[in-house]
Amino acid sequence: MTSTAKFFDLATYLSAQQAHVEAALKEAVLTTRPAKICEAMQYSLLSGGKRLRPILCLASCELLGGAGMVAMPTACALEMLHTASLIHDDLPAMDNDDYRRGKLANHKVFGEGIALLAGDALLIYAVEFIVGRTEGVSAERLLRVIHIVTHSIGVGGLVGGQVADLESEGEPHIDLNTLEFIHTRKTGSLLEAAVVTGAILAGADEDSLARLSRYARNLGLAFQIIDDVLDVTATQTELGKTPRKDEKAQKATYPKLLGIPESKRQAHKLIDDAMSEIAPLGKDVRPLLAVADYVRTRSN
Amino acid sequence: MTSTAKFFDLATYLSAQQAHVEAALKEAVLTTRPAKICEAMQYSLLSGGKRLRPILCLASCELLGGAGMVAMPTACALEMLHTASLIHDDLPAMDNDDYRRGKLANHKVFGEGIALLAGDALLIYAVEFIVGRTEGVSAERLLRVIHIVTHSIGVGGLVGGQVADLESEGEPHIDLNTLEFIHTRKTGSLLEAAVVTGAILAGADEDSLARLSRYARNLGLAFQIIDDVLDVTATQTELGKTPRKDEKAQKATYPKLLGIPESKRQAHKLIDDAMSEIAPLGKDVRPLLAVADYVRTRSN
Repeated sequence: MTSTAKFFDLATYLSAQQAHVEAALKEAVLTTRPAKICEAMQYSLLSGGKRLRPILCLASCELLGGAGMVAMPTACALEMLHTASLIHDDLPAMDNDDYRRGKLANHKVFGEGIALLAGDALLIYAVEFIVGRTEGVSAERLLRVIHIVTHSIGVGGLVGGQVADLESEGEPHIDLNTLEFIHTRKTGSLLEAAVVTGAILAGADEDSLARLSRYARNLGLAFQIIDDVLDVTATQTELGKTPRKDEKAQKATYPKLLGIPESKRQAHKLIDDAMSEIAPLGKDVRPLLAVADYVRTRSN
Repeated sequence: MTSTAKFFDLATYLSAQQAHVEAALKEAVLTTRPAKICEAMQYSLLSGGKRLRPILCLASCELLGGAGMVAMPTACALEMLHTASLIHDDLPAMDNDDYRRGKLANHKVFGEGIALLAGDALLIYAVEFIVGRTEGVSAERLLRVIHIVTHSIGVGGLVGGQVADLESEGEPHIDLNTLEFIHTRKTGSLLEAAVVTGAILAGADEDSLARLSRYARNLGLAFQIIDDVLDVTATQTELGKTPRKDEKAQKATYPKLLGIPESKRQAHKLIDDAMSEIAPLGKDVRPLLAVADYVRTRSN
């Protein structure tokens, strides 16, 4: 490890990257007619999330030698897709949650109809944004990015995970396999898309892509296990959303199946494995290691 | 007009094209885990719509010298997007309609949560499908198609129209301008995307694209005016969905603002104009003329 590596300041890095992403997201959704839908999209998109997916996408692009700006439209698109899924998740038809990121949920501010449409609009605008805003990348490469991103939030990814999650509610005998199926899709697939598309935009070789995929899948599952743990242990203020949701919805969770200490142990093991996967990719890997460490220690 | 033109049989053409599209749609959504979401997607996608958007896309591609198969993935994608919008439209949070195309609405069969996710999945799978299935088209051309399609269902298109429509409910003073804003977006933009992307996939010149755009915009507005008229005059059996919805929701409609005879006159004028726009594009224009005529005389 070089001396630069020793003094790499994770917190400064993350907050600088968050600021870049915030600035790009602020310019991403312009107010046009009808204004209300744009306000609803902006409300949730700019409500101060961790910006984990965009940061991973940018870091992965830079790791493989790309300029961060090449990946910024895709990074923003990933946050739009994530936000769309949260807006729809909070609707009464789904989790029926009134709070998100410490603020009222979209449907509590704009009504259910507008919240539904704001989610739809963000889902599809994400793709329009990648096509319309990405510069300096070949059309072939961009099509590959769009294919990965769209696949990651469809039936084979996020939506598939949400459906399996809905089906598991109140179901008394969910096993660890099913739970892993749910968790890898609900969180893992979009995180994986973030890391992999960032690298593709930089022109990565297939071996690096495979390592980054495994890193992201491990990280995603760890993230979701820690989410389950926090749902039991954290307060509403720490969480920014209603705690004990899983328990109330009688959802299968890692703490329920394995207990809290073993759940934490598995999450940490996954993060260690994620870190080992990418260690050979050079010194610019530090941001991705930092994000993994951030997931390990997060409290919300 | 050649003798072939005289004997062009619209009904045979439309049903043959519908059959091609049905076959392609049947193979488009495969059943994977979790099965329920795939069933929900298939239920609405294969519920026997008119397939107007796919047929327009294929016809436009062939008109400009392309092989129909080049446009088939985009044609199917347009039907997925249209279906997604109908599933979400029927949800209690929006129009709260129990019937669609003569069958129970998606949420009445699968529940609101799954219906919401089936709409999301179709929205995004449409794009994945275009990227993954289109063959023999340059990446640049395909990106242009994706850009047009995604724009047409976002805030500048379908979603924008739906929002303006929601906002107009119960509003006593909607003028003709606002109504046209709503109608051109709710129906016109996706029809326009269908016709224009078909032509782009065939490698059309910009003048032909401009003519086809104007054709589709006129056709889309006419379609929606006739929809308003049918909502007043047709029965549930003819319509396949609940009639008098607009009246119950106190929506502004063309019949309300202009009366039924004047609404019909305007729709027919728009269809005549649409037909004139494309007349110079050659004898293969007959399918597009046929579709325009079909819109004029439709009863559901």
